[in-house]
Amino acid sequence: MKDPLNELVDFLKIPSVSANPDNKEDVGRAARWLEERLRAAGFSVEVTPTAGHPIVYAEKYAGADRPTVLIYGHYDVQPPEPLELWDTPPFEPTIKDGKIYARGASDDKGQVFAHVAAVSQLSENLPLNVKFVIEGEEEVGSPNLVPFVEANRERLATDAVLISDSPMFAPGLPTLTYGLRGLTYMEVRLRGLDRDVHSGAYGGAVPNAAHAAAWMISKLKDEMGWVRIPGFYDDVEPISPEEREMWRRLPFDPREYAAEIGAGDTSGEPGYSILERRWARPTFDVNGIGSGYQGEGSKTVIAAEAFFKFSMRLVPNQDPDRIADLTEAYLRQILPTGYQMEVIRYHGGQPVLVPTDSPPMQAAAAALEKAWGRETVFTREGGSIPIVHDFMRVLGAPVVLMGFGLESDNLHAPNEKLDLINFEKGIEASKNFMRLLPEYLKGEK
Amino acid sequence: MKDPLNELVDFLKIPSVSANPDNKEDVGRAARWLEERLRAAGFSVEVTPTAGHPIVYAEKYAGADRPTVLIYGHYDVQPPEPLELWDTPPFEPTIKDGKIYARGASDDKGQVFAHVAAVSQLSENLPLNVKFVIEGEEEVGSPNLVPFVEANRERLATDAVLISDSPMFAPGLPTLTYGLRGLTYMEVRLRGLDRDVHSGAYGGAVPNAAHAAAWMISKLKDEMGWVRIPGFYDDVEPISPEEREMWRRLPFDPREYAAEIGAGDTSGEPGYSILERRWARPTFDVNGIGSGYQGEGSKTVIAAEAFFKFSMRLVPNQDPDRIADLTEAYLRQILPTGYQMEVIRYHGGQPVLVPTDSPPMQAAAAALEKAWGRETVFTREGGSIPIVHDFMRVLGAPVVLMGFGLESDNLHAPNEKLDLINFEKGIEASKNFMRLLPEYLKGEK
Repeated sequence: MKDPLNELVDFLKIPSVSANPDNKEDVGRAARWLEERLRAAGFSVEVTPTAGHPIVYAEKYAGADRPTVLIYGHYDVQPPEPLELWDTPPFEPTIKDGKIYARGASDDKGQVFAHVAAVSQLSENLPLNVKFVIEGEEEVGSPNLVPFVEANRERLATDAVLISDSPMFAPGLPTLTYGLRGLTYMEVRLRGLDRDVHSGAYGGAVPNAAHAAAWMISKLKDEMGWVRIPGFYDDVEPISPEEREMWRRLPFDPREYAAEIGAGDTSGEPGYSILERRWARPTFDVNGIGSGYQGEGSKTVIAAEAFFKFSMRLVPNQDPDRIADLTEAYLRQILPTGYQMEVIRYHGGQPVLVPTDSPPMQAAAAALEKAWGRETVFTREGGSIPIVHDFMRVLGAPVVLMGFGLESDNLHAPNEKLDLINFEKGIEASKNFMRLLPEYLKGEK
Repeated sequence: MKDPLNELVDFLKIPSVSANPDNKEDVGRAARWLEERLRAAGFSVEVTPTAGHPIVYAEKYAGADRPTVLIYGHYDVQPPEPLELWDTPPFEPTIKDGKIYARGASDDKGQVFAHVAAVSQLSENLPLNVKFVIEGEEEVGSPNLVPFVEANRERLATDAVLISDSPMFAPGLPTLTYGLRGLTYMEVRLRGLDRDVHSGAYGGAVPNAAHAAAWMISKLKDEMGWVRIPGFYDDVEPISPEEREMWRRLPFDPREYAAEIGAGDTSGEPGYSILERRWARPTFDVNGIGSGYQGEGSKTVIAAEAFFKFSMRLVPNQDPDRIADLTEAYLRQILPTGYQMEVIRYHGGQPVLVPTDSPPMQAAAAALEKAWGRETVFTREGGSIPIVHDFMRVLGAPVVLMGFGLESDNLHAPNEKLDLINFEKGIEASKNFMRLLPEYLKGEK
């Protein structure tokens, strides 16, 4: 067997862009490449076709009395465009300054392959049963994954789900993510007229949908940062004093954070720190608004229509459907007279909170600490990973989010990379986890 | 000489689309066509080149003791696209059901040519001095007209300016427009971040320019229809009881008006009728707003930037520059913290009010009444015709807006037309006006 880094280079060479129909063959090739590596590591593997790209399922048993871990990851990657912004070609992996540059290096080939390398190295000394579910459609919304998990509920039975598709809080700082925000995404389409009219001839006497959108948005979230939808905060689980204290100790500089994104100021709910706002407080953001003339210069038009798309990030115990219902009721209440409104509901996702004192989380913390020689920190994420809630719901097992990437890895952007130290420590942490999990599950530690 | 309608058909056949460089030759051809017709009517004509399309200037003197009228119009037309929506080709004039269909039929070839036909028919019996300024760039903003007027101030000296480039209030209802709203057009560009960020990872902790735009817009104009810029209404000339009464008598049905544009409701300042709101009250309208994702479906993004373009329609005695200053000061006051703002000022225009009791207006009213056998109504327009104010300022003469078109003439749209009766009555009214103006100026009537 080649060394893991050479193997990763081979994996990264395959342009498995799931969104691009031209790469369909390549996506299939990446699945077969994994199949081969996992077979070589002694796994029985099935490449299951779906309506889209195949799911690689692999399993290797250590013994009926041993516990089981299921490792989830994805072998598809984001499109590499815009190509001209890459310093080295996206599918010619390049090692430079202790980093490997390639599309998929961090998201997610490098991270998922760390686990494949780990089981290869453990070989016949596998301390527990290991199952892999590696899909090829994560970057296009995983349309076929939940049906697969639901259809294979018994086969996928596990004591813990391990996912490495997230960042560490800071370089060299081993991190476990135990919370994710949920999501409700909606759109409002407003119509005040059945055609655009001249703003001189009609201005002052007819509805203007752009104004209606502005009035509604300013009633949905105020300048203080509070969401004004009645009932929105009803089910919000307060942040515990322990969490606040734990997060306060993290290496985080609000000024650096603001400077990195060029924010003149951070903003949000008064009384909460930036990490608290991002991780444990719900919010409302317009993601797109449009009405009328979009070009250069001026046009004297009153547009017939306006739209705004918006998302609400939810925290335990908010329910996406209930929030959508509350929002829609409020929208109907604040709709100005003279306008027709269409409300569209897009996808939603449940917020997730994994108890940090569960044996799999404690085993993961110890595994990371052993690899890095530093105490593991527990963080949450502001985003949503819908599949996490689905794994918990269908398989009834805790999910461990053990990220090996960094925020600075240029995910979904040109010059994606993975630090080689993170790849190496990732393999080590994976092996540690497989050795430690059985002990923690037995309550030995 | 051919009869006027046949001549108009020839004029309409020339595709003098000023916006399209491919039609440059055609635009020049239209100018020369007019030159020829006016020469034939005994005028001395100059086709003056400009940086863009030429200006046709023509004059014919009745005598040094006679008063003068200057007739302004334009021989260029709007682009005909979309061609597939025309029932007959735009440059093959087609007479059907008492209407002539062609691009430019109403805007403005048909209307300006009515005056050319009138002076041809009056021939050697011209009762006053007549000057024509017919430009070829009205549909592209008349960039070279004001410099021409300013450079020829003395040569263009006149007792009245006559313009026929506007609609009658209703079919068969002779109409004079004595008021136009002014304009201040601006744009606000807001920046909260220096790049777009993920709404999950960052939502709740960073500025969102789309919200800032919405908050600002809702502070610029409220749901009642009031503009909230301090000082905005200070200089507004109130509507006189006589005007209110005069407009109340016009044949106008608010429900028909709303239905025609598909408005669920008319809206605007309380306490004013629709015509009052459109003609004599200032207003504020967003003409375009944009931020974030504009495509189908959903994208979880917080955009770095947002813009909104807006125009304020002004009435006497509001000053466009003062209103722009007040607006900019207020924008700086209501800008939420954490955002950078750029304020762009586009074109503006002064509001115009021509006294209805001036001799040229009274002569025009009598001329129309004689042609139509119906009392002339006095209306205002909600839009702006910047050149009107420029003529008044530079030449110091009242401007008579004597429209022969109709709102339903499909200006700037497919199937533009002019009712033949309006063309005929237009020629008659023009002749009447030339005969009556000297008498009214002498105070004989």
